[in-house]
Amino acid sequence: MLADRNREWFAAQNILALNLVSSPGSGKTTLLERTLRDLKEKYEMSVIEGDQETVNDAERIRATGCNAVQINTGTGCHLEAEMLASGLAQLEPPPNSILFIENVGNLVCPAMFDLGERAKVAILSITEGEDKPLKYPHMFQASELMLLNKIDLLPHLNFDIEKCIAYAHDVNPAIKVLKVSATTGEGMYEWYDWLASRSFRWSFASK
Amino acid sequence: MLADRNREWFAAQNILALNLVSSPGSGKTTLLERTLRDLKEKYEMSVIEGDQETVNDAERIRATGCNAVQINTGTGCHLEAEMLASGLAQLEPPPNSILFIENVGNLVCPAMFDLGERAKVAILSITEGEDKPLKYPHMFQASELMLLNKIDLLPHLNFDIEKCIAYAHDVNPAIKVLKVSATTGEGMYEWYDWLASRSFRWSFASK
Repeated sequence: MLADRNREWFAAQNILALNLVSSPGSGKTTLLERTLRDLKEKYEMSVIEGDQETVNDAERIRATGCNAVQINTGTGCHLEAEMLASGLAQLEPPPNSILFIENVGNLVCPAMFDLGERAKVAILSITEGEDKPLKYPHMFQASELMLLNKIDLLPHLNFDIEKCIAYAHDVNPAIKVLKVSATTGEGMYEWYDWLASRSFRWSFASK
Repeated sequence: MLADRNREWFAAQNILALNLVSSPGSGKTTLLERTLRDLKEKYEMSVIEGDQETVNDAERIRATGCNAVQINTGTGCHLEAEMLASGLAQLEPPPNSILFIENVGNLVCPAMFDLGERAKVAILSITEGEDKPLKYPHMFQASELMLLNKIDLLPHLNFDIEKCIAYAHDVNPAIKVLKVSATTGEGMYEWYDWLASRSFRWSFASK
């Protein structure tokens, strides 16, 4: 299976590959931009961007100084292991690095497709409503971590953050939840701690 | 084709069937609740709710006094014409009425599936970012109307509303755009005017 081949290659290269999944507009790209800027002195990082159309996101990522390859899926609703493999051939991520795979914005289909990643990370914007883990359980079952993003907007919304976390645990008792704002930076250091804890050999090469 | 059979049945019954499509969390259900409450003295209306799991949305709709049937798609990412047909058999929408079909929250896959509806209506929350029509062009090409929802949050966001509308017109020059807030009610009357203008025989039975 091609996903397994990707996984073996990541393991051999000591590359931490994370599959970022969410609805459109959850703030994935903004979260990545901030992560890359904050951590670029510490780690080698690169990005595969999935979108139906446009190369906008890869351009935003490259502006941070990191390598990025854009995969356009056309009418396709998710990335597949084969697309990732061809993106990797173009991107050539270095050994001992982190690879972020930004999937097509879709809270349904990417849940079903293993790309060979180490883990799926679900990003949920609090503007989407607290019921989303119940209504789209497959995505939250498939993810190790849920980043509750845009918490800076909490004062302007009617969003019950504890209820949302309880719903996520209803569908996946093991899911870890972090509250973040990629815009203000709140909570981002816990996400960086989680990243550090997930490296294959418990240490990345320092730059 | 089953979609055509649905369409013929809607025409024969003078039922205006609208397929509401959007990302998860765009506010479709809240928009429907307000629409049903505001127009229930004027029209017969009923709702088919699509979600991967839960019957929450159908319960919210029934609380407005309108009939609703929930279709759970499980791992499926969109409604199909056959699911709609079986939902209709259960719902039994009356002649001379409006049927709202709330599709699974997914800005990708429902664009490809004709249910036999009169029109697709795309709902985009301004919290999702102005680039979405470019990144998910198929949905905006397939839709007659785009409702830009949650405009009450505009002061708290960095969202360029004119740019978003220009992007929507880039991918579909014919798409009509209305700015609404289902929470505050702003702009909703233009949506109601659009609804009135779309009836099959230019008149619904008055209640």
